[in-house]
Amino acid sequence: MKILMVVTDGFEDIEAIGTLAILRRAKLDVTFAAIDNNKATGRYGVVSSEMVNLSSVNTDEYDVLVIPGGPEYIAEEKNPKFLNMVMNFATHDKFIAAICAGPTILGHLGLLKGKNYTCFTSMNEDFGGNYVDQYVVRDGKIITARSAAATIDFGFEIVEALCGVEYTKKVKESIYY
Amino acid sequence: MKILMVVTDGFEDIEAIGTLAILRRAKLDVTFAAIDNNKATGRYGVVSSEMVNLSSVNTDEYDVLVIPGGPEYIAEEKNPKFLNMVMNFATHDKFIAAICAGPTILGHLGLLKGKNYTCFTSMNEDFGGNYVDQYVVRDGKIITARSAAATIDFGFEIVEALCGVEYTKKVKESIYY
Repeated sequence: MKILMVVTDGFEDIEAIGTLAILRRAKLDVTFAAIDNNKATGRYGVVSSEMVNLSSVNTDEYDVLVIPGGPEYIAEEKNPKFLNMVMNFATHDKFIAAICAGPTILGHLGLLKGKNYTCFTSMNEDFGGNYVDQYVVRDGKIITARSAAATIDFGFEIVEALCGVEYTKKVKESIYY
Repeated sequence: MKILMVVTDGFEDIEAIGTLAILRRAKLDVTFAAIDNNKATGRYGVVSSEMVNLSSVNTDEYDVLVIPGGPEYIAEEKNPKFLNMVMNFATHDKFIAAICAGPTILGHLGLLKGKNYTCFTSMNEDFGGNYVDQYVVRDGKIITARSAAATIDFGFEIVEALCGVEYTKKVKESIYY
């Protein structure tokens, strides 16, 4: 399973890098990519460099797309290439995991219709699905998380979706979760 | 209150950058410094650049020292300048917050003697204090956390120590913690 996490300037630092750390701790193969760049600056000032430039990635090779939150979602929603990529994961029934402001992008694309999901509560809209007020919600291939506070649970939910309950339990135990 | 977070190569990505994000979300003034460098690479591959070089910092100006975990602790324990800095915070009765492998450094310096503390459980030794098996422990000016799983609680415990319960509650509520 190959995971693609995509960010741009304004990513929420813990939602992106915290989730990345949980996924790589679980020995998952994660590409950390920036849109049209090989670096990105988080909303809280972390400058992540030596990243993979999304424009050099064949996104068809990936099984899972991870979309962190933060103000970056505004730029992402205006980026047709980014939105096409998200739709491409959806139409191929691949996993899409989004946290905080990330699910808003999915909602606006119609991908939450008929789905149980969560998102940053004050940003919830009528996405045609069923908003659930909890840290993380998984419905089929769509995994959503509510906020930065849910980062660790979001990471583990992705691990569990890809690797199963038993493996995830071991990773959790390894850090006394 | 001025906070100094110090890392070097091998920092645990979520413990450092996750804690930083929580502290800056709470509008605290945090300097993110690398030892003898202006960049550092986390154990999970995040390259944090454009950082403050610790050698250019007057550490006397700071009120709080934050020590994340990860394999970086091995290099830090061999670095006399780093250890002197930690001792300087302690002898001036300033806050020291350490997570995961970080408390081990404090223990080896004798700073956990007579204190309630936690640390990465399998790395606990006879530090002359009272190990408590929970996510976060605060005893006076020493704040310790057990592992990466405790990152968010660690960040909020530092916020609470510096800004009080009421303010921290508001920050927690702002992300539906």
